[in-house]
Amino acid sequence: MNIEMIRAADARLEGHVRRTPLLSSPFLDEIAGRRLFVKPECLQHTGSFKFRGGWSALSALDPETRKRGVIAFSSGNHAQGVAHAATLHGVPSVIIMPSDAPALKIANTRALGAEVVLYDRAGESREEIGDTLARERGLTLVRPYDEPQVIAGQGTCGLEIARQAGEFGIESADVVVNCGGGGLTSGIALALEADAPGLRVRPAEPEEFDDTARSLISGRIESNERRAGSLCDAIITPAPGEITFPIMARLCGPGLVVSEEEALKAMALAFLRLKIVLEPGGAVSLAAALFHGDEIESDTVIAVCTGGNVDPGVFAQALVTLDP
Amino acid sequence: MNIEMIRAADARLEGHVRRTPLLSSPFLDEIAGRRLFVKPECLQHTGSFKFRGGWSALSALDPETRKRGVIAFSSGNHAQGVAHAATLHGVPSVIIMPSDAPALKIANTRALGAEVVLYDRAGESREEIGDTLARERGLTLVRPYDEPQVIAGQGTCGLEIARQAGEFGIESADVVVNCGGGGLTSGIALALEADAPGLRVRPAEPEEFDDTARSLISGRIESNERRAGSLCDAIITPAPGEITFPIMARLCGPGLVVSEEEALKAMALAFLRLKIVLEPGGAVSLAAALFHGDEIESDTVIAVCTGGNVDPGVFAQALVTLDP
Repeated sequence: MNIEMIRAADARLEGHVRRTPLLSSPFLDEIAGRRLFVKPECLQHTGSFKFRGGWSALSALDPETRKRGVIAFSSGNHAQGVAHAATLHGVPSVIIMPSDAPALKIANTRALGAEVVLYDRAGESREEIGDTLARERGLTLVRPYDEPQVIAGQGTCGLEIARQAGEFGIESADVVVNCGGGGLTSGIALALEADAPGLRVRPAEPEEFDDTARSLISGRIESNERRAGSLCDAIITPAPGEITFPIMARLCGPGLVVSEEEALKAMALAFLRLKIVLEPGGAVSLAAALFHGDEIESDTVIAVCTGGNVDPGVFAQALVTLDP
Repeated sequence: MNIEMIRAADARLEGHVRRTPLLSSPFLDEIAGRRLFVKPECLQHTGSFKFRGGWSALSALDPETRKRGVIAFSSGNHAQGVAHAATLHGVPSVIIMPSDAPALKIANTRALGAEVVLYDRAGESREEIGDTLARERGLTLVRPYDEPQVIAGQGTCGLEIARQAGEFGIESADVVVNCGGGGLTSGIALALEADAPGLRVRPAEPEEFDDTARSLISGRIESNERRAGSLCDAIITPAPGEITFPIMARLCGPGLVVSEEEALKAMALAFLRLKIVLEPGGAVSLAAALFHGDEIESDTVIAVCTGGNVDPGVFAQALVTLDP
């Protein structure tokens, strides 16, 4: 896993990925107590950064292998990213999804052309189900984070941040990234190491699902006790990956941990001040930037807001946190 | 009023305006029955395209005049655009706002540094109040649409559309633009005439406030009977402007007219599929593109979604139009 793979993925994504802008608001700067920028990956195709990794993985396959199709397991955003990338490449996709994933994500994944297979997040192993199906049908498994070409695709977001930081004259900053298994976090960290070494990645996680923050402290891969039941469903993977963790241990941290209530408030402020739609797991980074300023070092913070695939009821729940 | 003024405004805006992307979704293409792109000016500074005209007008003043400050009258978005542009230029601003404008817009305009003066939309003339205050304090009046430097600023949005259409290989399209007094509509029309003559501007308005559509049919400036009471408060000016109408009559139309219910549905679909926040008046163009396909000619439609400054309660009202 290295920067050249990220640059190669960026070339393959050109003309297909949406280059998301950096947004800001004087109202948010004031709350954060510093200059705050948001990288709104909710505006990416399929509503999250996962399209980057999906396209990167699909486009890296040799044509014969790709033709047989791909399989992925995901709490939802990776599913949509892979399904859309597969459909655009004209090949089939099978997606293994937890049965408690938001209804919207399941429906969208089917509409984007995938065959969806549901499993029980608490009692079954999605890895075993995925491996079996892949063998049976000759599908290529696209892992959600511990997969070099997926990390390379997510890292293209970091190349954009480095370029945009240059345009804004930002030489040092905390770059807060929502962290599940660490694919986006490690990919961005590698990109910034190469192109903007004054910017440091800070993984952000919800309370009770802070496996990466604890792993960075202990120096080895730690797991979460809870496996389900968070509003931040997009980023509650059990533990950092075996490929992603060494990269994060070398380049990232310390981790930032926020409450669900803080994530909902950040969603409401993104609605009010940036006019973007975030899901709870996509707003954890912004919550950390806004409400944990005492843990942030630089006078500039960039929050990578990773997705916006949220059910309307949950979004309404976030809006009521605004003062009347 | 000519294309050179728009190009000059574009140069003055460089580094200050946010260059908004073109968004799309296969789900929206399917509803529209053609390729649909959204120009999300809700992502512009202050949450609407009005920052373009505000910055253009402020930056075009000579320094001595500018130093005394500016005054504007507006249902809200022009107010915020002018207030923010004035504050960034380090000069005072006075904003005349209708007392029934959304609470959020009034509060935001004050927070952006302006002195806000309220008036009764049904019984008072904002023009008279503005003229009097301007004389008393030596302020320069920045009219919301019938003002060449404001039209020039709004027209920069059209230069971007022309450039982006080229990148996407779009040679002909209907460009649907929310139309109040016609500043944005006429500015974009002039820009497209010069840089993308295969793209035609279609003004979009809410029912009962379709003054521009009727004016384009009759060939002279027609007024609305109703003056207030629409959810689409951002675009319910009484009649097209004396500068903007001749431009629209030459280059734009026919007009498109949508219901409030259609605007709310378009807001909900923009939430669901594009992850952007629109206000009702900002979603009228998208509603026309989605639900009035039989009135659109090209196989590509670009909806300019002009603003996102919406109270949470109205947004929640839009979300309930989604199927459960």
